[in-house]
Amino acid sequence: MATEKKIPYKIYLEESEMPQNWYNMRADMKNKPAPMLNPGTHEPMTAEELSGVFCADLVAQELDNDTAFVPIPEEIRSFYKMYRPSPLVRAYCLEEKLQTPAKIYYKFEGNNTSGSHKLNSAIAQAYYAKKQGLKGVTTETGAGQWGTALSMACAYLGLDCKVYMVKVSYEQKPFRREVMRTYGASVTPSPSMETEIGRKILEAHPGTGGSLGCAISEAVEKAVTSEGYRYVLGSVLNQVLLHQSVIGLEAKAAADKYGIKFDTIIGCAGGGSNLGGLIAPFMGQKLRGEADYEIIAVEPASCPSFTRGKFAYDFCDTGMVCPLAKMYTLGSDFIPAPNHAGGLRYHGMSPVLSQLYDDGLMSAVSVKQTDVFQAAEAFARCEGILPAPESSHAIRVAIDEALKCKETGEEKTILFGLTGTGYFDMVAYEKFHDGLMEDYIPTDEELAIGLSKLPQV
Amino acid sequence: MATEKKIPYKIYLEESEMPQNWYNMRADMKNKPAPMLNPGTHEPMTAEELSGVFCADLVAQELDNDTAFVPIPEEIRSFYKMYRPSPLVRAYCLEEKLQTPAKIYYKFEGNNTSGSHKLNSAIAQAYYAKKQGLKGVTTETGAGQWGTALSMACAYLGLDCKVYMVKVSYEQKPFRREVMRTYGASVTPSPSMETEIGRKILEAHPGTGGSLGCAISEAVEKAVTSEGYRYVLGSVLNQVLLHQSVIGLEAKAAADKYGIKFDTIIGCAGGGSNLGGLIAPFMGQKLRGEADYEIIAVEPASCPSFTRGKFAYDFCDTGMVCPLAKMYTLGSDFIPAPNHAGGLRYHGMSPVLSQLYDDGLMSAVSVKQTDVFQAAEAFARCEGILPAPESSHAIRVAIDEALKCKETGEEKTILFGLTGTGYFDMVAYEKFHDGLMEDYIPTDEELAIGLSKLPQV
Repeated sequence: MATEKKIPYKIYLEESEMPQNWYNMRADMKNKPAPMLNPGTHEPMTAEELSGVFCADLVAQELDNDTAFVPIPEEIRSFYKMYRPSPLVRAYCLEEKLQTPAKIYYKFEGNNTSGSHKLNSAIAQAYYAKKQGLKGVTTETGAGQWGTALSMACAYLGLDCKVYMVKVSYEQKPFRREVMRTYGASVTPSPSMETEIGRKILEAHPGTGGSLGCAISEAVEKAVTSEGYRYVLGSVLNQVLLHQSVIGLEAKAAADKYGIKFDTIIGCAGGGSNLGGLIAPFMGQKLRGEADYEIIAVEPASCPSFTRGKFAYDFCDTGMVCPLAKMYTLGSDFIPAPNHAGGLRYHGMSPVLSQLYDDGLMSAVSVKQTDVFQAAEAFARCEGILPAPESSHAIRVAIDEALKCKETGEEKTILFGLTGTGYFDMVAYEKFHDGLMEDYIPTDEELAIGLSKLPQV
Repeated sequence: MATEKKIPYKIYLEESEMPQNWYNMRADMKNKPAPMLNPGTHEPMTAEELSGVFCADLVAQELDNDTAFVPIPEEIRSFYKMYRPSPLVRAYCLEEKLQTPAKIYYKFEGNNTSGSHKLNSAIAQAYYAKKQGLKGVTTETGAGQWGTALSMACAYLGLDCKVYMVKVSYEQKPFRREVMRTYGASVTPSPSMETEIGRKILEAHPGTGGSLGCAISEAVEKAVTSEGYRYVLGSVLNQVLLHQSVIGLEAKAAADKYGIKFDTIIGCAGGGSNLGGLIAPFMGQKLRGEADYEIIAVEPASCPSFTRGKFAYDFCDTGMVCPLAKMYTLGSDFIPAPNHAGGLRYHGMSPVLSQLYDDGLMSAVSVKQTDVFQAAEAFARCEGILPAPESSHAIRVAIDEALKCKETGEEKTILFGLTGTGYFDMVAYEKFHDGLMEDYIPTDEELAIGLSKLPQV
């Protein structure tokens, strides 16, 4: 069949064609991402400083700006084979519905129980923790996708997994919590009485529903004060983009196999884990001058770090205990208005992607929530898959780009990342169906508050 | 690659290897399933009688005991390509955990938004309705998997879809309801004021939570009293087993491609749609004397139609408006105690499977709910996938069979059907985690009540 090169609806690579290495975009970047700084001294964080919080191998990956191809350990490749390769799908039905001359492909990462691409980095981080002989890891989770992925990876490897889940999500998303418990994780509503910072916050704000920033602080405190534990994070970090490059590498291998050339690549962007992974090998070609692609980051209008933030050093967490990173940010105490894409509510953006964006190698657009859900529903009805709200940001812009082609007659080939499924987001879909969904766009004055508090570096 | 015959973790057929025909076990059965009878006259239902309720092409399939291979229309094959082939997966990790010499495979049908195999028949039934020029279809749904699948199929074909959802599920499973609404279906809590039978029931039992039997009666009434509508059903019927044969045909093609020979085939059984589909081509070989397989139906101890029911004519619905079918049954007014596998709570069993079971061509076991969830959790932790409670009945027995092999040293090759995912069943998982799940096993006296009311034919 392969010799005929007939393009199937869904392209699955053979196991033997799956990537053997992750690809590190930093190796090909002329302007490297700025180093993380110690929040006290404003000096670059050393490997030694970082290794109190993160596993040793992951610290090395975090700081490695030079190695282009990092071998994926055999054990991780075995785990990948349980749910990968993910399919590269031609959206024939969507194209027909839009009556567009554009060809639309999506790389679908939702066919695993965590429901998203998060598992690609969760298994890697859990593997290195296990390799280091640790007992377990700690992390925070908001909507719950990252926590679920990490629970699955830890269950597989027999590692303990402590998840601090933002209290309001813990109470409102009991199903996500139960999935994590099914995988043996302990899930604590944050803020909790288990940590000093939790107790301090509860004293100051009794009855608070918590925040991601607080949960990060608790998870970090728990890791550094527990023998045999380290902290892990599901986005933003360089190491996470490295692991997620498996998405783009598979997409490129599948496209190359059938002679498909993409013109435009679109991904949603919260902390950047999906977008950074999807674009990795394509951006690599672009950085090396081998090919050109239009690369578009899509963010919610309610949390527009690329399109309305500043490129500056800022704290990665609200509690200001984590290192400073140079990134597009809205300020570490920016609280986005409630929107239903929990994975896109982070105040900052991956330092790697921030540098690439600042260097003009990619563009960004922000989209309104109701427009996103309209695209999500249209997509679900013709392509079958019920998309996550996060992923639907990319669907929105893919549809918009395809409609532009309809006007101009261009036959662009578009790739977008379909990061996950929306089974746990039906409350948001319900609001949309009932006409109760609102669009939140912060005013310039509101954004100015967070931006005025950036640390002086 | 194919020439090397290295067996991958997950076997995906090429599109060109996907089945072109469904397989109809009845053609090879010496003892055909008994015909459905008119509930008034006790005469076999004619095509004409049936075509007031069902689409014409589906009536023909329902009554056709002779044609072995039925071509799958091109349009349905196109739709299948959107979410099929489903993978045949080797459960390496589960085998290792059990330390069994058995080889365990599962055919995973959960990688589509309806979350189960139900879509295989939903698209077929919607296709024939569309082909007949109908406006839409009506159906009932309990837990919601069938309703979701039908909504997806109707959205794709532009058909109207009216779902009567058991009121208690409508209220307790708002997420399922919203998925159906996302696909444009109208979802009505049953009993409703929309139908005569609904109004009658509401008058007699104000505030009732409804039942599947009542929802069936409302859906049938709506279909026969609405211009351009027919009724569709997701299990039990001969036509449904025909459509679901795609599961077994793919499994067999994938196994044949890599030289895998199954000894034991295991599936959960409610109305029989999954089991009948999974075993179809293997049972065909057995019926033709070409090969032998041990085939095991697994049912919940709380609703044991095969293991404790009678093989007799009975009503398919509680309202006694549907035809009589000869099947293993617990009596049409048997109400199973609450168990969390909504898809396995039907009082009867597919007439085809009932005949095969009665002829000694397959065996059946019943399992307790807590044992099922223990197996589900063990499976999730090592294989990644969060299984539906229904599917977990098959997991339980696959594990038990593999553990027997560990004792005897036999190297059996086991195939089981993993029909779907458990994302919408976390309330049940939560009860299990919290030690609040109970096992219900009806007493002989309780069963005798339903069995004493079988119609005299």
